[in-house]
Amino acid sequence: MASDPATATPETDPLAAALRAALSPDQVSTDPEVLAESASDKSSAGRPGRPRVRVLARSTEDVSAVLRLAYDAVVPVVPQGARTSVTGASSAVDGCVLLDLSSLDRIVEIRPDDQLAVVQPGVVTSDLAAAVAEHGLFYPVDPGSFFISTVGGNIATNAGGMRCVKYGVTRDRVRSLTAVLADGTVVRTGHDSVKGVAGYDLTALLVGSEGTLAVVTEATLALLPAPGEAAGAAGMFGSLESALDAAARIMAGPRRPSALELLDGISMRAINAYAPSSDLPEDAAALLIVESDEVGRAATDVEHYVRAFEEAGALGVRVASTGAEVDALLNIRRNLHPGLVAAYGGVLTEDVAAPRARLQELLTTIERTARETGAVISTGGHVGDGNLHPLICFDPDDEASRAAAQRAFALVLERAVEVGGTVSGEHGIGLLKRDAVTAELSREVRDLQVRVKAAFDPRGILNPGKKV
Amino acid sequence: MASDPATATPETDPLAAALRAALSPDQVSTDPEVLAESASDKSSAGRPGRPRVRVLARSTEDVSAVLRLAYDAVVPVVPQGARTSVTGASSAVDGCVLLDLSSLDRIVEIRPDDQLAVVQPGVVTSDLAAAVAEHGLFYPVDPGSFFISTVGGNIATNAGGMRCVKYGVTRDRVRSLTAVLADGTVVRTGHDSVKGVAGYDLTALLVGSEGTLAVVTEATLALLPAPGEAAGAAGMFGSLESALDAAARIMAGPRRPSALELLDGISMRAINAYAPSSDLPEDAAALLIVESDEVGRAATDVEHYVRAFEEAGALGVRVASTGAEVDALLNIRRNLHPGLVAAYGGVLTEDVAAPRARLQELLTTIERTARETGAVISTGGHVGDGNLHPLICFDPDDEASRAAAQRAFALVLERAVEVGGTVSGEHGIGLLKRDAVTAELSREVRDLQVRVKAAFDPRGILNPGKKV
Repeated sequence: MASDPATATPETDPLAAALRAALSPDQVSTDPEVLAESASDKSSAGRPGRPRVRVLARSTEDVSAVLRLAYDAVVPVVPQGARTSVTGASSAVDGCVLLDLSSLDRIVEIRPDDQLAVVQPGVVTSDLAAAVAEHGLFYPVDPGSFFISTVGGNIATNAGGMRCVKYGVTRDRVRSLTAVLADGTVVRTGHDSVKGVAGYDLTALLVGSEGTLAVVTEATLALLPAPGEAAGAAGMFGSLESALDAAARIMAGPRRPSALELLDGISMRAINAYAPSSDLPEDAAALLIVESDEVGRAATDVEHYVRAFEEAGALGVRVASTGAEVDALLNIRRNLHPGLVAAYGGVLTEDVAAPRARLQELLTTIERTARETGAVISTGGHVGDGNLHPLICFDPDDEASRAAAQRAFALVLERAVEVGGTVSGEHGIGLLKRDAVTAELSREVRDLQVRVKAAFDPRGILNPGKKV
Repeated sequence: MASDPATATPETDPLAAALRAALSPDQVSTDPEVLAESASDKSSAGRPGRPRVRVLARSTEDVSAVLRLAYDAVVPVVPQGARTSVTGASSAVDGCVLLDLSSLDRIVEIRPDDQLAVVQPGVVTSDLAAAVAEHGLFYPVDPGSFFISTVGGNIATNAGGMRCVKYGVTRDRVRSLTAVLADGTVVRTGHDSVKGVAGYDLTALLVGSEGTLAVVTEATLALLPAPGEAAGAAGMFGSLESALDAAARIMAGPRRPSALELLDGISMRAINAYAPSSDLPEDAAALLIVESDEVGRAATDVEHYVRAFEEAGALGVRVASTGAEVDALLNIRRNLHPGLVAAYGGVLTEDVAAPRARLQELLTTIERTARETGAVISTGGHVGDGNLHPLICFDPDDEASRAAAQRAFALVLERAVEVGGTVSGEHGIGLLKRDAVTAELSREVRDLQVRVKAAFDPRGILNPGKKV
């Protein structure tokens, strides 16, 4: 079945008709308003493409049927969930089928004895965390989009968050996947056991592949026992350097924190203005927030962290002993993005990572980039992992300010590669960072990726133009 | 350059001549004795193939040159290190180049601030662990072959060990790889930063691929801060069921042990005979050994473990508080294999894994398999991970006993798949379990793996007939 989207109208589009016949008419829409509304995600990657049709999948079989038809017609398919991507990974490409997975939103099973949850991709991450908590279990992945993004999107991007420093990224939680290949073939990768080497690690390959290799329709996720009551501390520092020194001291010790976040002076002033009760010192250059959730040891862990703060020359320290105090501490960090948006209007979110020993160098070049471009850049992030989220602020109504931010954005990506780091720690590549990836990865690796992509998707219909 | 190994003699083999010209003559051997000596590994996978030539690589460039020549000539290449594979993964195939990587044995760099080690594949795992310990760091992977196997082999098989229950498998430690593709192209996969999603996770794909996708010539490995002083305990049980109950209680809690090993009555009697100082109760049906190395908490962790033992009805408990006592405890486990060899002569090592909730079922079917085949099967293993190592004992001089063991071996693999498990938790597939993998993985997944293999190795020269 070949069809030309350029000449088909929504009413006569043979692909839409075939999709309606294969699924049910109410799952398929060619309504221009629906298409326009569904075309974009939360990225700043420019205007999305014009989708051809939108399909609401309700089962693995639906996804298989959609892909079989799209494969035959050689029509691109863009998988979507909550569309919270900040890179354009879930935004439409011209003439595509938007494959909406948000109705695949069931927690299929929680198996406490095996510490596993079987979930559909449309489950919101925080809903999963709450559901497993009722069984005394813990799903630690906590991206900033925790309350709005879905497990499917987390898998697509290999999402991280504040707790990665102790608990790892999404990949570390995915035991097995049900996925539909480009031609509609359904595969089950991985294994339900903790360990297993019976095949190539296709599961790890699919995690982070941004819907370019297959469409995930079910995931079996590894859970952990609930952690202990958290305790935490904040340290104020006169320089980013001394804050990094304190972070390095903490990471060098065996008391691994469950969060270790860095904020700079720009961040602190914006947070103070947004949430005055934060009461952060306006003259400090850096703030570290650290947490331990280790059972029976959190309080002594925090004593060690405070000692590291002091050894690194902290100007002041706040200790959080109760749950409410720890929450207040983490809320400082959570108020960063809204605080900057309130202060400046527009924010481009970077997501670079580097080996920890080169973070100072990266921070210095980011400061220089801010001076050179005139952009305001707040710098901080998951410092325990070396994963920084410089936030490039701009006035959305000022073309020059917007252009300076874009220039700074590209330069920061270059700087990350120069210090042996990467252009994306956890947000993904999407459309936004395709050029940057070309600078980071060798041609040989890119060629190999193209061949791997072709092994999964020989006609190149899955989320084309993203990731690779 | 095409050449026919059937007509070439060692002296006239044009591939050997080309290899001598590309490397240096002393790195290339066609000596029949050398070839015969190098053809096999520690597997029971049957007689190895007849190699054509053996090459001792000294650098990534050497490996690239060898593969380029083999690729042109379409000659199979079998990468080798310490040849400790128990599955035939490193044993010769007919007409192959044996590519010996054991001289690539340098620890290139230890970067304490980044908690990274850069190593060549021929480094023996215990040597790496000792070297990083001098920097206050910890490489936790501890396969049974710790003192003889190499990091390259560990990567090839995604090796595990006793500490996986807390620290994960080799894959969890590999940050990036230098690898040579079948045609000699050198690629660098992964990233030195903790997190990174700039490309597909080719690193995870290579780990566990048993040399069938590429030849790893350098690995950057993530290290941990040195753990605390360990404490431990052993619990004796009247049934495997109550031992599993105790293990489940421990795993359900947040005090994750650094080892949790199960041994059965057959194991205990063999260990007692081999090392009488073990002094294990001959009438107990099961033994659990548990360890915690958590800083500042190991002793209280052990108190919790002992409580779990008692709640599950332990017949007796031994607590190990000092380093020497913990070592003695773990030596009980380490004496299992030699003890069984001493008692029975021959041992086939299984390596099955299952979701923990189905371990009892698996153990019951293994007991039935022993009765049905007449084989003696000692059952135990890394119970915290659900990774069992049933050891099938036989008299090597008795054909009937040997045949019964082979039959039992195949049956146990079937049983593991039946309970939703896998035919290999950490040893790999090699030649030994190719049929078993066919039963475990769907045809669709196997087809996909073949396409992935072709994306890396279109002429199928890398370790052909293994893994996939």
